[in-house]
Amino acid sequence: MSDLKNDRFLRALLRQPVDATPVWVMRQAGRYLPEYRARREQAGDFMSLCQNPQGACEVTLQPLERFDLDAAILFSDILTIPDAMGMGLYFDQGEGPKFRKAIETAKDIEDLPIVNTASDLPYVPDAIRLIRRELNGRVPLIGFSGSPWTLATYMIEGGSSKDFAKIKTMAYSNPDLMAVLLEKLTLSVIDYLNTQIAAGAQAVQIFDTWGGVLSTSAYQEFSLKYMAQIVAGLNTHSEGREVPVILFTKGGGGWLEAISVTGCHAIGLDWTQDIGQARGRVGDRVALQGNMDPAILRAPASVIEAEVGVILASYGKGAGHVFNLGHGVTPDIDPERVSAFVDAVHNYSVNFH
Amino acid sequence: MSDLKNDRFLRALLRQPVDATPVWVMRQAGRYLPEYRARREQAGDFMSLCQNPQGACEVTLQPLERFDLDAAILFSDILTIPDAMGMGLYFDQGEGPKFRKAIETAKDIEDLPIVNTASDLPYVPDAIRLIRRELNGRVPLIGFSGSPWTLATYMIEGGSSKDFAKIKTMAYSNPDLMAVLLEKLTLSVIDYLNTQIAAGAQAVQIFDTWGGVLSTSAYQEFSLKYMAQIVAGLNTHSEGREVPVILFTKGGGGWLEAISVTGCHAIGLDWTQDIGQARGRVGDRVALQGNMDPAILRAPASVIEAEVGVILASYGKGAGHVFNLGHGVTPDIDPERVSAFVDAVHNYSVNFH
Repeated sequence: MSDLKNDRFLRALLRQPVDATPVWVMRQAGRYLPEYRARREQAGDFMSLCQNPQGACEVTLQPLERFDLDAAILFSDILTIPDAMGMGLYFDQGEGPKFRKAIETAKDIEDLPIVNTASDLPYVPDAIRLIRRELNGRVPLIGFSGSPWTLATYMIEGGSSKDFAKIKTMAYSNPDLMAVLLEKLTLSVIDYLNTQIAAGAQAVQIFDTWGGVLSTSAYQEFSLKYMAQIVAGLNTHSEGREVPVILFTKGGGGWLEAISVTGCHAIGLDWTQDIGQARGRVGDRVALQGNMDPAILRAPASVIEAEVGVILASYGKGAGHVFNLGHGVTPDIDPERVSAFVDAVHNYSVNFH
Repeated sequence: MSDLKNDRFLRALLRQPVDATPVWVMRQAGRYLPEYRARREQAGDFMSLCQNPQGACEVTLQPLERFDLDAAILFSDILTIPDAMGMGLYFDQGEGPKFRKAIETAKDIEDLPIVNTASDLPYVPDAIRLIRRELNGRVPLIGFSGSPWTLATYMIEGGSSKDFAKIKTMAYSNPDLMAVLLEKLTLSVIDYLNTQIAAGAQAVQIFDTWGGVLSTSAYQEFSLKYMAQIVAGLNTHSEGREVPVILFTKGGGGWLEAISVTGCHAIGLDWTQDIGQARGRVGDRVALQGNMDPAILRAPASVIEAEVGVILASYGKGAGHVFNLGHGVTPDIDPERVSAFVDAVHNYSVNFH
């Protein structure tokens, strides 16, 4: 890995020895940073920034200038795939994602195309190539996608949801139609992530933001099954290295054993899990990523540092831990607190390696 | 228990043999019933209905006229305690609960009184006495309260919340002040539930709706510790019988072992847990209540019946299971589906006893 100046993150995902625990932050390029807000304002709307490779590259690199992070993550949105399917993604000021063309009938689902990333989403591999060039081996770059189930929830609900009434009604009343949609999304995600890897993504994360709203059996049937198909369909060797795959199901703490046998390299944990117990459950099958409650970033640095120490001690000695928050950093957080968090991980973790 | 014509529910909570699995439904007296909507309109606003013992009694009994339920639950709201503390609870049309007098400072917390149910909330024991008279031993009556943590979230956030920013900031930055509030709530809940038991509640459930937003250590410190204090402080013998205590932490599936050693009689499960695995984890320490996804009530009766069969088989043979949904029934559900659910539990469960 001579081209990478800092390969802690990739090594930890493959459960190889490291000198200190690597750390990155979900949504590290985002609204809590004043330089992001300035660049976002310049771009106009959020999707214009995502679709502009130069802008996405700039924003991806911003947090690396401030913090001693061990990975960069592509600046993009999980809903680029439904957008590329023709649904017309947009964001109302202060609200969640919405679609201009909602899915309402079986025919709407049957008519959906499978995404060809090279032609339908060229701005994503373009941005990745640009970021890799700018990173110049400083840290690895993470690509990502939403999980099929998570993408489907937004597509069927038409945006964010509280009780997921529409998609659950479809899943339980018409599982065959649900499967048609999930299979199209699965093929699209495989193409999307393989294209990201070919363009230079050195690890990929699948965000299953809404898998945790399902029962155990429904999670297996409607979410995990398709994520396992994606893992099996990825070209996880690129540039002479393994490209680790991270599966993150928010609220999925009850299913770690099942997630750990999908072939993924690592599992992302939300903050409700005790990471030491999680390690005991998954054994040496996978690495673990997480899992401080993002809300702790609102507390003084001393509290943040103490919590970092508790999580490091809970995971214990040895390789296989990538530190992160249990969910994305929120817009109200003072960047100084993120700095305290990142530095505490590096400083305190040396004793565990 | 000669005065009770149907004691399946109480027997199952005490893990005693039953002829069929008992079933009740969280929010069984509620907006999905047209007769409830009519009575609610007559009452004016929601709180007026809660505060009128005759109205609360009528509404409590409505679902028993339609469905073969094994328990009644007091019609009330979990936020009666903060209301009685002087916060001025109200409900805006179509929105969640709100308070006229929010808690904003440490002094606001220090000034909060501990609730004396007999003088501050007389309408609750009055309603219980009336309901018991009207039930006339048909099925047992469940009393309930919100957990201290859950009450505190509404009091500090000023209503419903998405990320619980205010209360988590207080919990992590000022745990001593947080403890003052949680201790006052704990003493209030003990008085509240003991008064309900003295008035005739034959089982009590503590709703910890928001314990699941905490990390494992924070859940122990800010929620479970106080629920354990409540369990220890309850007079669980009344009318010559044991009064079982059910703890329900939504999203608490990771902590079943810890919940099971609080002294409670039963744990309520949300729908994300596999009830068979949960039974294996808690052993014979407690009974389990749950746990069908309420969204399945939107599917055809055949799907509901199949899911009931799966959950019964997952729990397996023997005593200790009270069937329920994993959360409250939602206002859009057709009462016919609830009827199919309740009947399926009774019909299919006979083979497991």
